Order: sequence, then C-alpha cells, then structure tokens
Amino acid sequence: MSEFDLRKPNPLLIVISGPSGVGKDSVVQRMKEREFPFHFVVTATTREKRPAEVNGRDYFFVSKDEFARMIEENELIEYAIVYGDYKGIPKEQVRSAFASDKDVVMRVDVQGAETVRKLAPEALLIFITCESEEELEKRLRERKTESPDSLSLRIATARKELQRLDAFDYVIINHDFHLDDTVDKVRAIIAAEHLKVHHRTVTL
Amino acid sequence: MSEFDLRKPNPLLIVISGPSGVGKDSVVQRMKEREFPFHFVVTATTREKRPAEVNGRDYFFVSKDEFARMIEENELIEYAIVYGDYKGIPKEQVRSAFASDKDVVMRVDVQGAETVRKLAPEALLIFITCESEEELEKRLRERKTESPDSLSLRIATARKELQRLDAFDYVIINHDFHLDDTVDKVRAIIAAEHLKVHHRTVTL
Repeated sequence: MSEFDLRKPNPLLIVISGPSGVGKDSVVQRMKEREFPFHFVVTATTREKRPAEVNGRDYFFVSKDEFARMIEENELIEYAIVYGDYKGIPKEQVRSAFASDKDVVMRVDVQGAETVRKLAPEALLIFITCESEEELEKRLRERKTESPDSLSLRIATARKELQRLDAFDYVIINHDFHLDDTVDKVRAIIAAEHLKVHHRTVTL
Repeated sequence: MSEFDLRKPNPLLIVISGPSGVGKDSVVQRMKEREFPFHFVVTATTREKRPAEVNGRDYFFVSKDEFARMIEENELIEYAIVYGDYKGIPKEQVRSAFASDKDVVMRVDVQGAETVRKLAPEALLIFITCESEEELEKRLRERKTESPDSLSLRIATARKELQRLDAFDYVIINHDFHLDDTVDKVRAIIAAEHLKVHHRTVTL
C-alpha cells in the first residue's frame, strides 16, 4: 500500500552552522556524547596532526597532493582554506552513511553551509546563534582561538554572518549554559523532519 | 536587530487528523493530560448535551438557530453534519488564543482538515494513521461507535481517507499501546515548527 511506503527511512544531510563564537563545535560534541545515532562527518585536512589527535576520528589527515586530487575529481562537498591549510568534506562519507540509512551531521561555517545548499538543495540547514550581537561579541572576546585574525575582524565577520539567516531552514538560540536545550532542539527538528509527508531527498 | 526579532512567538494552528479508527481523540486527550500549553479547540454542536458533559469543556452546545447564524456570519472555520447534528469550529477561539500567543490544537476529520487548509493555508496538518490497512480495519471492527453506518461503509471511507495523506505536512503512525510515542512526535513537530526561520503565519 503506497501510503505506508512513504515511511521508509529517508536519511538527512544535517548542517550545523552559524557565526563563529556561537558554540557550533560544542553542540556537535554534545550530540556525540549523547550518542545520537548519526554519522558525524570527519573533515579532511592538509594540516599537521597534533599529538592528541587520531586520524579518521578528529580529521582525515591527507597530503596536499591528495587534497588536490580530491578537488580535481570532485570528491568534496565543500572545501576552504583555513589559515593556510585546506579543509574539506568528502562526499564519500555522506554516500556510505546514506547507504546504511544513517543521517549525516556536519558542522560547517556559514559560507560553507551555503555551498552545501547549492550542491544539495534538500540539505537541512540549522543556524546556531546567540541571544544578541552583544553576547556574540562577548563570546568572541573571551574565546581562546587559534585564529591570527584581529578581534575586530572576527566580530565584523560574525556580524555579516548573522545576516545570512534567511538562507537557513531552522534557527536555534544557543543560550549560555543551556547546551542540552540546544541539542534537544536539534533532535526535535530531526525527528520532525523524519515525519514529513514530503521528504527531503539528498543525492550527491 | 532584525534577525532576533524573528524569534518572537508565532502561534500555530495545529490540525490533528486522520481516518476514523486511528486514535485521533486519544492523541488529543493524552496531550491534554500531559498539560501541553496549547489551546484545545472546543467544537460547537447542535446535538443535545449528555449528563456527563460540560458546556464549554466538551462542546459548546448551541441551538440550531444560533448555529445557522454562525454559518451565515462566517464565524466557523469548518462545519459538518454528523449523524443529523451540526458540528463546527468557531474562528473566535483561534483568534483569542493567538492573541495570547498560544498554539491552537484542533482535531478534525480528513475532509475537515482540507477545508481548514483552504481557509488557512499555513495551518500545520498532522495525519495520524496506523501501521497498515489491515490494522485499521481491525480497529474499526473492535471499536464501539455511536455511528449507525455499516462497518463496510466505515472501512471504505477510512481507506479513501488514507489516500489523502499527500495534502498533509506530517504523518505519524500511532502504534497500538504507544500513545505517548505518538504524542512525543507531535510535540517534536511543534517544537521544530517554532524553530523555523520562515514562519507559518495564520490569519483568520
């Protein structure tokens, strides 16, 4: 009976994004800790592995030649140069997770999210933000960061990124000290999306 | 800052619908028991009040003349004749709940849900169903009902209604003995809808 066929799994491509300073990494980290049954994308990077890092868990560490090949052969969903090193998301990960009906979660910056949207219009884009522009500035100020950019540049970038909200599907305010609330909201969004009559169908 | 204005309340008009026999009433009843902070619509009816019923809680009991006036003056979202009695949903209830930023929940049959959609295209339509057509037949057979219709007529109607799924936003399979799972799913849908960047705006 065709109506009930609609309830077959429809794996989602879930993009967690938002301006820097809002806590995207903490959100994804907590989702992992809470053992959500998703595939969390591992980014490929050309930067050097640090002692505490594990290849394939924290990143896929690849050479610049290998990264160049991946770009050439269109194997990346999106990539960017971050402080001189290349970072990118291999399509293969999404494909293999989808093959086993698993939702895929990736954390990308705002510009990257828009690139994903172009490539996969049916991706689910969640914008993480904080209460106000002032709060965002405060967080950026207090943040220990590896970025060599000046604080004023980071604030200006984050402000611009706040204005990209319209390109996203959902928005969650990540209140300080309420990380689990944010994660609960992400979970509600994903649960609801799986109950939609008209599915998002992502092909890569 | 305009981005954050988007997070002002946007009350939803939530329609719980589905073929008869799937347990719509139980779903709404359990939502009430779990004290979800919604306004549950009270239907106006011309049928006689039964001893256990309370006017304004179970139904608004109105005369046929009063009901005729409500139809004339366009005060009903939808109405139907059910076994000779009129039943209808006053717009006023939705308007006053919305005025206090409350989501409104109504339980209507499949045909009624489509009428609501016409009047309020941004209404949130949830289709409750069961595992299979066989299960639905079983439930209709076992059900004590006030309906004078024959079982075969009720089954034929329910089958037709199953095919209207496409007109709905979300679908939930209400598994036997898992009513709270169904209610959790309704809650996830409503939570997610409140996190949408582009709101549903219902005006009546």
